[in-house]
Amino acid sequence: MAVPQHISFVTLGVRDLPRLRASYAGWGWRELPGGDEEFARYQAGGVRMALHALHRLGEEAAPGTAAPAPGAWRGITLAVDVASADEVDVALGAAVEAGAELVGAPVTRDWGGRSGYVADPEGNRWEIAWLPGFLPPAG
Amino acid sequence: MAVPQHISFVTLGVRDLPRLRASYAGWGWRELPGGDEEFARYQAGGVRMALHALHRLGEEAAPGTAAPAPGAWRGITLAVDVASADEVDVALGAAVEAGAELVGAPVTRDWGGRSGYVADPEGNRWEIAWLPGFLPPAG
Repeated sequence: MAVPQHISFVTLGVRDLPRLRASYAGWGWRELPGGDEEFARYQAGGVRMALHALHRLGEEAAPGTAAPAPGAWRGITLAVDVASADEVDVALGAAVEAGAELVGAPVTRDWGGRSGYVADPEGNRWEIAWLPGFLPPAG
Repeated sequence: MAVPQHISFVTLGVRDLPRLRASYAGWGWRELPGGDEEFARYQAGGVRMALHALHRLGEEAAPGTAAPAPGAWRGITLAVDVASADEVDVALGAAVEAGAELVGAPVTRDWGGRSGYVADPEGNRWEIAWLPGFLPPAG
């Protein structure tokens, strides 16, 4: 048996769940039922995103290992795709208006698309991207 | 306009792409065409995973910010779901045999499922999980 090539969850360890919850709510994201004070889940297209108390996630996934420093760049990005170049700028504006930090102004990429980056209040990086011809049609 | 609740890509910044490529190939993962020496993509169920040279990803997503230390716990986990409790142990064994590090032995969780954690050669954490009643049926 191999390891199934199928990601079901992306889980971000968070220090201040109420703040992050409010931030994603400000993006218009709707949480799935069943969350609690240490855990929130979102259906995000074909994958689920979870916010989990960092110390709890670390106990499971990295016992005895230092947690990343607050606000540090974690070396991982998540991308949200939009339908046009113009929508990149609009969605980035909406994210910033809801409290995200603009960390990379939108630019037209040499591969033909357009994207920019924001960070949530704990530094998690999001690319808002228009990816012409790069993704299969939405299911 | 809000920010679409739809994740298209999870991108891991990597230092040694040939090593990571070989590691995921050892899991049985098949890369999408179009990769190069700084970029590899995988369809992973309803989302795509990318491996991208860390310094290039940082230039876009975190300019002027220190990269995470080699092997550091990044505070983020990705989950692969399997169909039964037994398959958790088998898939973890397969991952370890292909070079992943076991960082959390499989245990039956208090929410009724079973999972354990491995780290890839650069410390990215993967939960191999059986999630009874927790996920919608695979599409």
